[in-house]
Amino acid sequence: MLGRHLPLLVGLLPTLAAASYSFDDEFADLGIALHSRAANADGSGPVYYKDPSADIEARVADLLPRMTLQEKVAQIIQGDMNGWMNLTDPLDNTLTYNATGLEEMMRTKGGMIWAGYQTPYEKFVYGINIGQRYLMENTTLGIPALVQSEGLHGFTNNGTIFPSPIGLAATFNTSLVAAVAKVIADESEPLGIAHVFAPVLDLARELRWGRVEENFGEDPFLTGELGAAFVEGLQNGRRKNASDTAVARVAATCKHFAAFGSPQGGFPEGFDCIAPVAGGERELRMTYLRPFKRACVDALSIMTAYSSYDGVPTAADPHMLIDILREEWGYPYFVVSDAGSVDLQITTHGTCEDRACAARNVLVDGRSGEMGGGTFTFLTLEDQVANGTVAESDVDEVVRTMLRTKFALGLFENPYPYEDYTSQIRTPETLEVLHQADLESIVLLENREDVLPLDADSIGAVALIGPQAGRVSFGDYVFLNASDNGISPVDGFRAYLDSVSSSTTLNYAEGCKLWSNDESGFDQAIAAAEASDVAIVMVGTWTLDQTNLWTPGQNATTGEHVDMSTLALLGAQLRLAQAVHATGVPTIVVLVSGKPVAEPWIQATPAAVLQQFYPGELGGLALAEIVFGAHSPSGKLPVSYPRSVGTTPAFYNYLKGARPIDAGSVLDDGTLMFGHQYVLDSPVPLWSFGRGLSYTTFNYTDLMVPTNIGTADDFEVTVTVHNTGSRNAAETVQVYMTDVYSSVVTPNQELVGFAKVFLAAGASQTVTIPILSEQLAVWSTRGTWVVEPGASTLKIGTSEEAYMTTTLTVV
Amino acid sequence: MLGRHLPLLVGLLPTLAAASYSFDDEFADLGIALHSRAANADGSGPVYYKDPSADIEARVADLLPRMTLQEKVAQIIQGDMNGWMNLTDPLDNTLTYNATGLEEMMRTKGGMIWAGYQTPYEKFVYGINIGQRYLMENTTLGIPALVQSEGLHGFTNNGTIFPSPIGLAATFNTSLVAAVAKVIADESEPLGIAHVFAPVLDLARELRWGRVEENFGEDPFLTGELGAAFVEGLQNGRRKNASDTAVARVAATCKHFAAFGSPQGGFPEGFDCIAPVAGGERELRMTYLRPFKRACVDALSIMTAYSSYDGVPTAADPHMLIDILREEWGYPYFVVSDAGSVDLQITTHGTCEDRACAARNVLVDGRSGEMGGGTFTFLTLEDQVANGTVAESDVDEVVRTMLRTKFALGLFENPYPYEDYTSQIRTPETLEVLHQADLESIVLLENREDVLPLDADSIGAVALIGPQAGRVSFGDYVFLNASDNGISPVDGFRAYLDSVSSSTTLNYAEGCKLWSNDESGFDQAIAAAEASDVAIVMVGTWTLDQTNLWTPGQNATTGEHVDMSTLALLGAQLRLAQAVHATGVPTIVVLVSGKPVAEPWIQATPAAVLQQFYPGELGGLALAEIVFGAHSPSGKLPVSYPRSVGTTPAFYNYLKGARPIDAGSVLDDGTLMFGHQYVLDSPVPLWSFGRGLSYTTFNYTDLMVPTNIGTADDFEVTVTVHNTGSRNAAETVQVYMTDVYSSVVTPNQELVGFAKVFLAAGASQTVTIPILSEQLAVWSTRGTWVVEPGASTLKIGTSEEAYMTTTLTVV
Repeated sequence: MLGRHLPLLVGLLPTLAAASYSFDDEFADLGIALHSRAANADGSGPVYYKDPSADIEARVADLLPRMTLQEKVAQIIQGDMNGWMNLTDPLDNTLTYNATGLEEMMRTKGGMIWAGYQTPYEKFVYGINIGQRYLMENTTLGIPALVQSEGLHGFTNNGTIFPSPIGLAATFNTSLVAAVAKVIADESEPLGIAHVFAPVLDLARELRWGRVEENFGEDPFLTGELGAAFVEGLQNGRRKNASDTAVARVAATCKHFAAFGSPQGGFPEGFDCIAPVAGGERELRMTYLRPFKRACVDALSIMTAYSSYDGVPTAADPHMLIDILREEWGYPYFVVSDAGSVDLQITTHGTCEDRACAARNVLVDGRSGEMGGGTFTFLTLEDQVANGTVAESDVDEVVRTMLRTKFALGLFENPYPYEDYTSQIRTPETLEVLHQADLESIVLLENREDVLPLDADSIGAVALIGPQAGRVSFGDYVFLNASDNGISPVDGFRAYLDSVSSSTTLNYAEGCKLWSNDESGFDQAIAAAEASDVAIVMVGTWTLDQTNLWTPGQNATTGEHVDMSTLALLGAQLRLAQAVHATGVPTIVVLVSGKPVAEPWIQATPAAVLQQFYPGELGGLALAEIVFGAHSPSGKLPVSYPRSVGTTPAFYNYLKGARPIDAGSVLDDGTLMFGHQYVLDSPVPLWSFGRGLSYTTFNYTDLMVPTNIGTADDFEVTVTVHNTGSRNAAETVQVYMTDVYSSVVTPNQELVGFAKVFLAAGASQTVTIPILSEQLAVWSTRGTWVVEPGASTLKIGTSEEAYMTTTLTVV
Repeated sequence: MLGRHLPLLVGLLPTLAAASYSFDDEFADLGIALHSRAANADGSGPVYYKDPSADIEARVADLLPRMTLQEKVAQIIQGDMNGWMNLTDPLDNTLTYNATGLEEMMRTKGGMIWAGYQTPYEKFVYGINIGQRYLMENTTLGIPALVQSEGLHGFTNNGTIFPSPIGLAATFNTSLVAAVAKVIADESEPLGIAHVFAPVLDLARELRWGRVEENFGEDPFLTGELGAAFVEGLQNGRRKNASDTAVARVAATCKHFAAFGSPQGGFPEGFDCIAPVAGGERELRMTYLRPFKRACVDALSIMTAYSSYDGVPTAADPHMLIDILREEWGYPYFVVSDAGSVDLQITTHGTCEDRACAARNVLVDGRSGEMGGGTFTFLTLEDQVANGTVAESDVDEVVRTMLRTKFALGLFENPYPYEDYTSQIRTPETLEVLHQADLESIVLLENREDVLPLDADSIGAVALIGPQAGRVSFGDYVFLNASDNGISPVDGFRAYLDSVSSSTTLNYAEGCKLWSNDESGFDQAIAAAEASDVAIVMVGTWTLDQTNLWTPGQNATTGEHVDMSTLALLGAQLRLAQAVHATGVPTIVVLVSGKPVAEPWIQATPAAVLQQFYPGELGGLALAEIVFGAHSPSGKLPVSYPRSVGTTPAFYNYLKGARPIDAGSVLDDGTLMFGHQYVLDSPVPLWSFGRGLSYTTFNYTDLMVPTNIGTADDFEVTVTVHNTGSRNAAETVQVYMTDVYSSVVTPNQELVGFAKVFLAAGASQTVTIPILSEQLAVWSTRGTWVVEPGASTLKIGTSEEAYMTTTLTVV
């Protein structure tokens, strides 16, 4: 798909320094012979749990009784690479380690090692090698650590950065999301990473929340499908030398289990504060857990949430974590608390008076291990077992889950970085996936009189205006300076115009800062617009990398722990767009943001509106390609856009009857037009889930759905989609269902299937979308899943529009 | 308390027309002898269920088997006085009725009769007499109807209007609220009303909701205490000639059972729309049901809610209405659906496909009767019993509850209006209660440099400015033109100044309308301010009477089905206050509103701020008395004031840890000061629950609480409060508790007791506040109420301030 721009793109990307570090060097320090791998450090011979061909459960059963209590506890408490490596200076490349620290770390917290550090790859693999070698060779049982890092939208240890998850969700493209996740595994696995803390399957239903961008949007089905693709993309394959019983090469982590995305007040995490989530069993089952059930039963790890749900801290909620996850779903792998959340029971939730209680609850009621970020509260478990407040069998239960995850990764066979550890980073194939993700995540929201695409062969001058035009606005969960690897819109537009030998002039003006009311740049912006045939105004939200985001004195409007009380544009941005529009030059607004921007003027006024969620590294170029029509936009909204924060929630799949519409408004001259819901506004979103325009037109025919199905029947929806326009383009076929009458209140509509198809101009394709019987089930008042007889309507369209409808009856 | 103003007040109130209608006239029409009362119409002798001295359960047991199925169904479906009376013209006083309509109504829906009509009292009692006489004399069993009307804050059939419930709540005065409810019973009972649809015990925790004013605020405990007082005030006593077994004279109706006050999006009822409420079992038990448990077990009626809770329509929720209400609480009396809500299962919730299902669910799962406003769906029950889809025993179960309510009212002994039916309306005693309620509901929020009270003996001129100054802003649930009985602030100020022979000049200017951005009146307002020594600016929200509120084309900002997406002042109001303040004349803002107004400028800037919730008829006068210091203000906020709609919820009793505070702000010059929660605002309310200043000062000493109590022990908090200032004043002693550690997440603080004391300047009083063991219980993860050992902190103060604290330990 990259086509003729590939050489250009490769040239734009940073060149990776060749690895200069040799794998043989480090072992001299440890004095360990490489061939000792098959034996324990105490000299005993190979044992059953080390047999790569043995059944995983048998290996677990063999290993567990060999472990001391301390070894068990050390398996389920997160250690940190900084225990033996000095990682404070991200540029330092000194290959040394602290032997005392190494021994201490591995003795107490060697089961999993946090390694999300910004450090040269050479030093990184050195450190991981040191650590794993120690565990394999210098400990009695030789249990390797699960080395962990982040990868929400790109491997954070200086890997390729893709669009933020909300942008990936806008692609509605499961195979593309799987390809993105595969790149994350490609880039992390060779460095020795075996555990990545992604994907996030929370639902973005409380838009004040700073972490909306980390989600796949507001819908349980879309989130589940993309989550499953992400897990599959990350896990699929086998580590080098791994046993045949291994089922994954990198453990995905579905988070945050569960219901984290609807925090009271919009803030799930401030300083020592965690907003509770209100909800009952039905909403838990039918909304929050659905994506986890779809995507995570085969994920090798799950992370719990910081929040409480109906008054029970999720990290220690036996109903969610044992009744449902372990017993109903049979989940066998490792579950871990989020950073610091064990202690939050003491400091925040007030459900524990001491650390013993906090550890006990998470272990026994949560059947989970402990992430770092707290006070290593699981270290109390040894004493608690000794004094009888915790049964060793409870510790065993969680240790088993960790061992299963490790055996399922084949980690005992080869826990080390690979010698060619940079060979899979930023490959040409990566670049194709990146480019495609950046293209497909752009959503065309308005295109009045087909002002877009612009014709680079004929247009004289384009003004590129606004605080987002000259910068790279990555989402959160990236390293410091990651944006140096990105292409800004200004650079992307210039590169694109050069690449097509266009004579179009580009007039750039920042206009204002993202973070200020200062309008002193407006004159220059207006001049740029007036000197051009069309003006593109780029505004939005911004966040920071993981270093700056947590640094006092920095500013941001989205990202973890950055919660807004308004969804409007900040500072002078809206006024900038209005001033440019007032010139009379056709104005296109591009929103670059991590969440919906609620500005009715932008929906109503400019000639066109594009939504670019926080992009990946090629975002600026992809935007240019869309604007100039090198590609037709195909993104669809994964989240609905309210008119204001006061009209939230805006999610499309509200329960039946939940949205009275008797709207009021305020006219431009200040006249108040009174309504009731709301008195001076409307609960109808500016743009709703599933919306996304194209440069071509589509037509649908031949919708086929069975008339009747049984209560246990899966079925298929078949429809033919025609590209009736003159441009090649992609369309996402969306199927929505409404259970007309049900014993409990169900959503007014729900996405139940989708398929993205790429169609040349004039081409057609028949699409078959499978729908599972379980997608029709309701959680009954008797506490069971039931597919109820009766009619459901099915719609092909978006949440806003019906292209075709039909009825299906469960008999 | 009324003192020297009483003659003045009486003069201000409308004079009631003397009753000219004779009780003997009507019976000629029916041809029934008055002495036939003791016998059935069929001539049989007195029967057991008519024995006034018999046990109520025995009377129910005797009567029920005598009833036909149609008679049973007719008991539990609401009829309407308009079935036999022409009530379209509120001024018409023609004493005629429609005999065919009467027979039809009583045959099918004669169990309860809606009578909330605006009609002359003479015609009203005529109609009620006709109806009841027909039932008593012309039907086989002689079962009287339960005649129903409204009385949220005053009997709506032209009775005395008191402050809206949120204003009554601000009094924190249980005996005063009981006295208000007693007036409602005094005024309604003689007219033949036996059933009043009040109080509302929903919690005002979603402030966009139009009906915030109908509630006693955001707190379960305050709502429960005031609800209990209201129920007691309304019910306490016995109807004329009622049996000794009667326990109440008017049936109260606790509504809306339950959890109606937290609707998604803020709109629980639009046109055919009902917002769902999200929540689980713990929140239901520990928050929403608490006031009902406190206030309603002895109420003779309960009304269900329109909403669904966790996906189950409340009107047919067997868990809420049978498991908890009937079985756990043993509630024996009549429960009724809200108007039209049976059909909402079909039209809105989508839980029933037909009327048979809708009736069946409410009857069987809700164990409730049917209010009007729908399609009389309970009329399907006869056929359903015949065809076996409903068991007659289910009908019997609900009919029993209705009969219990009627016997408990002694209604069989005398269902008629009294001959002196106007004798209790607007009595001098009523006026005292009204005056006191209007005084005590005013809350002093800010009083910088003690600008208040003003001295009517010395101040030259006062400007009274703003759209609320010249009008009477009653809350919803009043009749058309009810405000004609009220005194506006302008009239109240003039009357007060006259009554004290003050020479202070009053300069009135409207300034702007409530509903417009038009600033053309500003000049006059500024002139009024500049001609005065102090300016009082009165702004706020408004609603309409029950006729206009539902009339298309009318406008309002609060009231039933009027939901706001912003909590800011509408139109030009804030700018008016700012323009007046800019004159430099000391400015006092008075908010007259039905809900919190979110305007940070008003909190921060004017010399003083007063909150007057929608007042009663003497509101304008009471405000003058407070402003000029005839009384010291004593109201306390029953609800917290957020800084903006985007910072909600603002309720003080949030679960522990739910409110991170890392606030940002926007400076007056537009400079953005960045924080995180929220980025440019703060979740800390402008003013929080319990706040209310005085003209005097108080000091607290001698706090005594037991050090240790057992898990089943009630206990007392004793403290001495001293009026250390120079004015007589009332203080509400408030006790807050925090369960430091608990097995589930509990509120950061909860009001657990309060007592209002009236103290002369210099006086002291020791107050003893009882706290019940059950107030310490949590709803455990095992589904039981448990008082857990451990420490609780107790605070004397407001939700914002701690005057004294101590610790109590449950051992």
